[in-house]
Amino acid sequence: MTKQQLIDQIKLKKSFLCIGLDVDLEKIPKHLLQEEDPIFAFNKAIIDATHHLTVAYKPNTAFYECYGIKGWRALEKTINYLNLNYPNIFTIADAKRGDIGNTSTRYAKAFFEDLDFDSVTVAPYMGSDSVEPFLAFKNKFTILLALTSNRGGLDFQGMKVANLKVYEQVLKTALTWKNATNLMFVIGATKAAYFKNIRKIVPNHFLLVPGIGAQGGSLTAVCKYGLTDEVGLLINSSREIIYASNGSDFAKKAMESTLKLQLEMAKIISQKFR
Amino acid sequence: MTKQQLIDQIKLKKSFLCIGLDVDLEKIPKHLLQEEDPIFAFNKAIIDATHHLTVAYKPNTAFYECYGIKGWRALEKTINYLNLNYPNIFTIADAKRGDIGNTSTRYAKAFFEDLDFDSVTVAPYMGSDSVEPFLAFKNKFTILLALTSNRGGLDFQGMKVANLKVYEQVLKTALTWKNATNLMFVIGATKAAYFKNIRKIVPNHFLLVPGIGAQGGSLTAVCKYGLTDEVGLLINSSREIIYASNGSDFAKKAMESTLKLQLEMAKIISQKFR
Repeated sequence: MTKQQLIDQIKLKKSFLCIGLDVDLEKIPKHLLQEEDPIFAFNKAIIDATHHLTVAYKPNTAFYECYGIKGWRALEKTINYLNLNYPNIFTIADAKRGDIGNTSTRYAKAFFEDLDFDSVTVAPYMGSDSVEPFLAFKNKFTILLALTSNRGGLDFQGMKVANLKVYEQVLKTALTWKNATNLMFVIGATKAAYFKNIRKIVPNHFLLVPGIGAQGGSLTAVCKYGLTDEVGLLINSSREIIYASNGSDFAKKAMESTLKLQLEMAKIISQKFR
Repeated sequence: MTKQQLIDQIKLKKSFLCIGLDVDLEKIPKHLLQEEDPIFAFNKAIIDATHHLTVAYKPNTAFYECYGIKGWRALEKTINYLNLNYPNIFTIADAKRGDIGNTSTRYAKAFFEDLDFDSVTVAPYMGSDSVEPFLAFKNKFTILLALTSNRGGLDFQGMKVANLKVYEQVLKTALTWKNATNLMFVIGATKAAYFKNIRKIVPNHFLLVPGIGAQGGSLTAVCKYGLTDEVGLLINSSREIIYASNGSDFAKKAMESTLKLQLEMAKIISQKFR
């Protein structure tokens, strides 16, 4: 998928929502546990019920790897189902990978070729040659961790280097890498006040924003400084949507939670692009 | 495996070698491609030929993930084979994972419980709550990236924060985390001159050292400042050993390359602990 196709989808659906498919067998409706592949059955139902209101889905690989081969198969089935049935959806493998050059190429092949995701999240700690192998893939996006929304996020990201914070140096340096147009960045919503400054460093790149809702971030606050002329934001929500109910009505309740967020986004988009 | 058991093995075998099982189907002997599981067949032959000369094996997960479910199954078979047949071997999942708290717990379960590795490599960028879930596992070790041996390693790790470099801050901060005794650190051998200073910050923790040989690091230089009274070093070698030959004699040649390194190590250990 190209960046323009993503922007077109956002404007068409009036949504810049990403749904996190972080499936926990202890939280999904009990009746699904009788299915041959409960994780995939859950994802399929969520996707079928919400695909018209969201532009992206983001399975976090940890939630699949912890179930071993069964989990990896459920991940494979989920991405294949999305690619086959909803080709206009932007797909994100939230894998937070990164290794030395030739090894990062293997991870890139795993997620961009074998599984055929549109994008993957990558950790910056190992520097340029750990990220550039991902950036080399055409029409695939590398979503680099910059400022994360977790409690320890600022432990290292917030340290001061010269006049900038570490995460600002990451943003600035990444822009100098080969094929930097294929970058997006993870910026946690719980730090909404930071967005003004972040947009000075990366005025045009898409930002993937977790932390709205459960983690305390506000959609309005993020949009105030984060929105660009090309929208430039993907807001992730996971638990509030996929676990809106754990009864037999889970897909319907997930749709209703999604709709609530989509209506907020439609309002924001209508105001911005009227 | 406990730290003491690892030290005992090192002294018994007079070796602090770790063999990297980074299997590339394009580099292994052609005759193995006819096997049902060529990756596992290759690993099994390498392990059977070298286990008496090494204390650890380290599969890098990227080399397995890029083959999808087949690759994940080969990884599972490899770790099961090691745990069943060579329980005194220290096993490292070189996965470079790390995510927000509850998600890191899933990765920890994937590698410590489902696959039952003794240790896993973890990236520090997301801070305390992304690493502590790994540290919570008893008799399991979390090998934190500090200073890596790749070209871009210093891009961020080398930035100056107050009077320290970022990687020094990572070492220093990590020591304050809960269960920090379960930490080890990745320190690239190509930066041997740094070891003196690193040992001032982490005098007792084990360091996993890649970059000897192909990447230019010297064993003697690393040992000069890296060795502790408990040895404290695991030196990794991958390509020089596992691809010593791509003919039918590959396992024998791998053993010979391993023996060469082990003899160097035996000399160093004998001098240190006479």
